[in-house]
This record gives sequence, C-alpha cells and structure tokens, in this order.
Amino acid sequence: MGRRFDTVSFLSDLGVGSDTVGVVRAIVRDLAPHAVVVDLTHAIAPYDVRGGSLSLARAIGYVPSGVVVASVDPASDRPHVAVEVAGGEGVLVGPDNGVLAPAVAIAGGAERAVVLSDDALHLPSPGGLLAVRDIYAPVAAHLCNGVDLDALGEPIAVEALLPGVVPLARVGDDGAVVGEVLWVNHLGDCQLNLGADDLGLDESMGVGVRLEVVAGTGPEPMTRVAEWLGAPTSTAVVAGAIGAVVDPYGMVALVASRRSAADELRLGVGDQVVVRVDRGGSAPPTSAGSTSPVSLRPTRRD
Amino acid sequence: MGRRFDTVSFLSDLGVGSDTVGVVRAIVRDLAPHAVVVDLTHAIAPYDVRGGSLSLARAIGYVPSGVVVASVDPASDRPHVAVEVAGGEGVLVGPDNGVLAPAVAIAGGAERAVVLSDDALHLPSPGGLLAVRDIYAPVAAHLCNGVDLDALGEPIAVEALLPGVVPLARVGDDGAVVGEVLWVNHLGDCQLNLGADDLGLDESMGVGVRLEVVAGTGPEPMTRVAEWLGAPTSTAVVAGAIGAVVDPYGMVALVASRRSAADELRLGVGDQVVVRVDRGGSAPPTSAGSTSPVSLRPTRRD
Amino acid sequence: MGRRFDTVSFLSDLGVGSDTVGVVRAIVRDLAPHAVVVDLTHAIAPYDVRGGSLSLARAIGYVPSGVVVASVDPASDRPHVAVEVAGGEGVLVGPDNGVLAPAVAIAGGAERAVVLSDDALHLPSPGGLLAVRDIYAPVAAHLCNGVDLDALGEPIAVEALLPGVVPLARVGDDGAVVGEVLWVNHLGDCQLNLGADDLGLDESMGVGVRLEVVAGTGPEPMTRVAEWLGAPTSTAVVAGAIGAVVDPYGMVALVASRRSAADELRLGVGDQVVVRVDRGGSAPPTSAGSTSPVSLRPTRRD
Repeated sequence: MGRRFDTVSFLSDLGVGSDTVGVVRAIVRDLAPHAVVVDLTHAIAPYDVRGGSLSLARAIGYVPSGVVVASVDPASDRPHVAVEVAGGEGVLVGPDNGVLAPAVAIAGGAERAVVLSDDALHLPSPGGLLAVRDIYAPVAAHLCNGVDLDALGEPIAVEALLPGVVPLARVGDDGAVVGEVLWVNHLGDCQLNLGADDLGLDESMGVGVRLEVVAGTGPEPMTRVAEWLGAPTSTAVVAGAIGAVVDPYGMVALVASRRSAADELRLGVGDQVVVRVDRGGSAPPTSAGSTSPVSLRPTRRD
Repeated sequence: MGRRFDTVSFLSDLGVGSDTVGVVRAIVRDLAPHAVVVDLTHAIAPYDVRGGSLSLARAIGYVPSGVVVASVDPASDRPHVAVEVAGGEGVLVGPDNGVLAPAVAIAGGAERAVVLSDDALHLPSPGGLLAVRDIYAPVAAHLCNGVDLDALGEPIAVEALLPGVVPLARVGDDGAVVGEVLWVNHLGDCQLNLGADDLGLDESMGVGVRLEVVAGTGPEPMTRVAEWLGAPTSTAVVAGAIGAVVDPYGMVALVASRRSAADELRLGVGDQVVVRVDRGGSAPPTSAGSTSPVSLRPTRRD
Repeated sequence: MGRRFDTVSFLSDLGVGSDTVGVVRAIVRDLAPHAVVVDLTHAIAPYDVRGGSLSLARAIGYVPSGVVVASVDPASDRPHVAVEVAGGEGVLVGPDNGVLAPAVAIAGGAERAVVLSDDALHLPSPGGLLAVRDIYAPVAAHLCNGVDLDALGEPIAVEALLPGVVPLARVGDDGAVVGEVLWVNHLGDCQLNLGADDLGLDESMGVGVRLEVVAGTGPEPMTRVAEWLGAPTSTAVVAGAIGAVVDPYGMVALVASRRSAADELRLGVGDQVVVRVDRGGSAPPTSAGSTSPVSLRPTRRD
C-alpha cells in the first residue's frame, strides 16, 4: 500500500451547473469517506486544455498534499494517467493532453507516472465511458485509501508525458515585446504571458514609467498608453486610464479602474498585445522569449 | 431513534449563485456538524420538475448512503415528503411533485413515506415559507442525527406518491421510432428517451449501421444521417458528421465531433427526434414504447 | 490563544466559476485541516458592496459559530479587518467597506475589531496583493487554529467601522410609501426595502387588501394592482396577477405566479417602487422611514 491522502482537489471543464461534478463528489464520498473534495473550479471551457492548465498552474502552489483531479477534454484519445510529484506529496490524475503539465512542472516535475489501465479499479459504465466519473473519481478515492500508484496501471516514462502548450513572448524587429493574453479574470483584468523582467521593469519602479500598448491585430488595433504601477496592494489606476501591473500571480496584467480592461481594450484570451516601454532612453529588454506559463510560480508553503 | 447518517446529497433549482444554497449548507453544518453536504447540482431550471428528476436519476446510483434533498419547485401546493428506500440506506426529502420518483424507482422503490407535518422539527420563518431552508434543511440534519422517519410527520401510503412524468418513445406508422430529447449536456450531446434495444441495436454493433435522424417538428425539420458508434471510450465521430451512441448513462444520444450536436441539429430538451435505422433489410424494432427515464440505470455499487 | 473554530463561511464577488474561490478553499484546507468551508455564495457582482451586504444579512442568522469571510470589492483602499461578534461566537473577516455591517448588526453588533496589519500571518504574493487569498484565507485558518483576534493586527474602535449603506423608505406627499427594490431572487421575486408594518399591514391580513404599485421612474412607469397575500406557504398568486407578500426574510416582496415579477414589472435592484394601500378608509402608514436592511432578521437559533 502507498501513502494515504485526505484531500481531492478537483478542476474540470464540466461547467458550474454540471451534475457530473456532483456525481464525482458523491463517488469520492462513498469510496473514501475520510477524504474532502476541494473544488478548484469547473468553469474551464469545454476542450480548453490550455485554459485549464493555466488555471491549475495558478492554484497548484496552494493545493494541500493529496490527489488532484484535472478533467479537461478527457474524451479525446489521449491516455488517462496519474503523475506523482514532490516526493509522493501529490498525485495528479487526468488526461495526458497537457492539462497537467504546467502544474507538474511547478510542483517540481513528474517523478512517477502510470496509465490508468487497470479497469478493476474503475467503475463500470452502463454505456459509453465518462472518464471523470468512471476512472478519475474512483482512482482518486483509491489513492486516498492508500492504493499505490503502481497498482493503477502500466508505468510510463515521465519524459513521455505530453508537455503543455505555452505561448512564448518575443521581441519584435523594433524592440517591442510581442505577447498575448493568457487569462481574463472576473474583473476584466488581462494577464499577459510576460513577467516584469521581460519588459526590463521591476515591482519597485513606478511613477513616470509608461508603456505603449497595442491591443489586438485587426485592421484597427487599439493603441493606448498604460502607466506602470508595480505590484499594487489596491486598485491604483486613475479613473479612465489603463494601468500595467505585476498581478497577484507574478505576471504582467493590463487593468482599468473599477471596470474591465478587457472590454476597454476589446481583448480576449489569446489576443496579441504589443508592449513598448517608454523609459527615456534606457536599454531595451533582453529577456523576452523565455517566459512561459510554467513560470507562474505561486509561493509554495511546503 | 433511527439510523444516523453522515451525508446529505443536495440538488435544487436555486441556481449556482444562490445564497439560499449556502444557507442550507450552513444549517446542516450547524445542526448536524458531523454530516457532509455533497452538492449534486443547483442548476435545474426553476419549476423544471422533469429536468430535476432526470438529473437526480443520473446521480442516484452513485450517491452514498444518507439523506438526499431534492428541492425543485417546492413552492407549489404539493406536500413536502420524506421517502425511505433500500432498506433504510437512504431517505429522499423534497416536494411530492414527481422530482423524487425516478430516483426512488432506481433505488428499488419507496418503502416508507411521511408528510413533513411536524413543524417542531422545522425552522421558524420571519415571513413566508422557504421550504428548502425552513423544512428540508433541518429535517435532513435531524435525519443525520438519528431522528426516525416516523417522527417527521404523518405516514402516507407509498402508492400515493406522485409518479414521475416520463416521455415514452413510440413506433410510428412507417416503423420509425419517435422519441424526444431528454437532456442536453455541457458539450451539446443530446440524450434521447431511447435505449439501444428500442432501435434493435446493441453496443457491439458499429461499422456500417446508419440512422436517419429527423430533428424537430418545425416547417423544415432537419434531416441528417448519423453513424452508429456503440458505446465509445473516446470521441469517435468523424469531423463534420453526427454520431449516435450509447451514452455514459445507457441511453441513445446524438453527438458531434468536438462541437455541439444540439447547436448543429437545433435541438433542445423536449424536442422531437424521429429515428430510422438503416440496417439493410433486417427486422424493424419492436420494443419501442417501453422506455422511460426510470430505466436510467447507473450501476449501483452497494 | 483564543477559541478554536471549525467552520469558515465564505461569501465573495469572485464569481461562481472563479479558481480563486478554489484556492481559498485549498488554503483553509491546508492550514486548518479540521475546518470546513461553507460556501454561502460567490455570485455577488464585482464591486457590489450593498448587494453583498444584503446577501450576508440574509444568511447570517443561519451561519454556525465560526469565521465568516466576506470578500466584496476588497481591492479598494479600505482597510482589511476582522470583527468579533456574539461574545466571541463569530469573527467576520473582510474589507471595512460596509459589506460586513448589516450582518454585524444582526449578530448583535461589533464587540472587538482589528485591522489585519500583521503580515506575518498573511501569505506572500508573487506580485500584487490578492486580499482574499493572501490575507483573508490564511487569517481565517489561523482563527480556526485558535489565534486570538488581537494577534491579527492593530485594534480599532468598533465605532470607527464603516456602516452599511441602507436605502430608507419614505412616505411621499400623498401618503404613498416610496421604496426601492433591494433584491431580485432566482424566481424574479422583487424584495422591497419595506416591512409589512411600513404599509400598516400584517401577515394575517389577506382577502380584499389591494395595493397600487407604481414600478420604476421612467417616462412611463408601470402601474399595477397587487393583492396582499400575507406570508404564504406556497405560491398563492392567481395566474396573470401580481401579489405582494411578506417574503421568507420578513420583507415585502412583489411576486407573480410561476413567472418573474421582475420581468413583468421591468424592475431591477435599486429601482423605485411606490406603494399605495387600498384598505377602504383606514389610517395611512406612519412607520415608513425607519426601515433598513439591518432590520432583515432571520431567526437566530443560538
């Protein structure tokens, strides 16, 4: 037997109203009554593997020891896997389609992995397969009950796991940094695939640093000047203006004062954003191109 | 005293953002601190008793022993009831308007039932009645604490409970099977009120079996050919095509490849779907007409 | 050390799909494994302090002893506070922007309060502050673990806490009561900022009492006659008509029969409603003007 766990953190693309989410909670409660299900989110759009992987990456540093189920686009033909990380402190369960990859990397990398091929540990379906219900839920419960990873199925090389799809920023011909929108939060803040260092800036810089932002790639992309606000502790944008901040995840985000920057700049996930820093003659950025969602790094407390 | 329970599974039409859902969780936590609330779903549309009953039917086979609260359209003038099933393993609480009926049938049928008439076990309201808060939540907590069903109110004959409203499929004049859409899931898959046997098909049949599907009843119903895919373990539809599967609940569903069959066929819950099987001269179906949501049968594990 | 708690009730404006809600659940699970998170609601609109305060006020009488986190518009420049109520039975944590005020009043008033200034008890952020994650979640966990209120930061006078913004009803020149819509629930019922006594009515009055309702203030406000229905135990409105009830929170609400009164009357939160009672010559109301959301008074059970 392996180590027992008492928490199943659960992220999916099932939607906030899905009764399948409820069924997964019920199965874990039934098979591993001592375990608590912590719902991370179920609002990942169907098939949005990248969005799911970024959401899990934002959360993983805060997730307690235990099992993580991440069910995003599980009905493709990718295998179902379990991946052990952090010296056995955590096991991530889901499809091997990249949704686990950034979180696994943040947690220190995969140490063991198996394909969930032993269907004696699954639930029988009255029809077609519903992987989150028939495989991930019972497997998570069995892990909580001390079943070892090796008992779940055939081992696979951790190098064979599918990596995440990560949009890298790049420096354009004229020295501007070309990035894109990774995520729009509930306030309309637009997180970019850039760290402050990609712009040659840091959190302590503030007054007087301005960025030219070109949002979108249509025939009339929107150009705005944004003020650099560092890492704020409260909404710090002047009403009517656009600000650029180091957001609570350590990434550069475009924000507005008590309204949606996404609406203001007509930006959505995946849209291009070109940023030029106006710092009065200082050196152009040199580090852009190395940023990826894997660099999202919420502080780990363990 | 009766048996103690430690799980309250909870389904409602309150909406995913309702603070009344939170109040129910709080009441159970307050009155029965050892019990865990498992939210099945709260996205049933207001007044949609049939939709709620089908959602509960999909879940019930996975629900652990304990109390089930199903609050859908509880403010009609139907009585509030508690129904015992499975030799006392479970008690379903809700309005006697049919929402409980399919789940009760799947769980083996009602064994005892009471009207929740003893208001000493309810919470007082500062105004009008909010049954889920004032009756179902405290009653669920009392059941968890070992209060016997008989203490909740007057017994009623289980035969007097309202049955569910179940749409039966039928065979049309020309041998086609006339069904309807029971449910559209988050991917847009359209579950019909048909089992494979209603079409003279089974899960093992596949290559070459085609169905003519007439979706809707408007002046220009949409006619499409769907390929029979049996009970798939992954998305198996050719891009651009429509497939017919035995879905994870054992019912026939129309699906598309990584997009919404409901959008593609302009179908919603309750819409008629006529199916003709093209199997090259074999016998027409004979069993249609016997199907009902009560035949939804997730495998029970207890 | 202070008293230990085992429940964190949690309300926010993060949205029902927010992964930050999941992260807060994960942090509490990690730092205080014995504590249960009870989600009250996360559907408060961003920045809607009044809506959040009213939702919390509806819930507070049902919340078990423990910690309450109410995160609505936490990124303004208002301080983050913890407020002790009910002889130490409860501690409310959130921004001092009025969101806590009605609930604190219902719970008997603030007894001690501190600004959450000791950042040794917070989590470090990789960028800007996300108060619900970096301050409220760990502080709630520490309170559950027995950390005393005084250890969280500098004490502040309870009189200095920001009061809630409460819309008072008033009696117009012609004796009509001028109120507004406080809340529209999932059925479209419109709760007003009026008690029955503000209209000179009570729950036992019924047949024959009619109210003239003028909904809205546009160029063509809608005028309808509503029948007074007291405090109903089921939907009691005649089909097609509008009713006025004492709702399950003790406030007057406008309702329709199995459809949305808000749609029917084109009313939303904050819209004006003028009510005239037709009682055949009895005295006009005298108490209007004293009502506030603070008078929402779910029955406390402790």
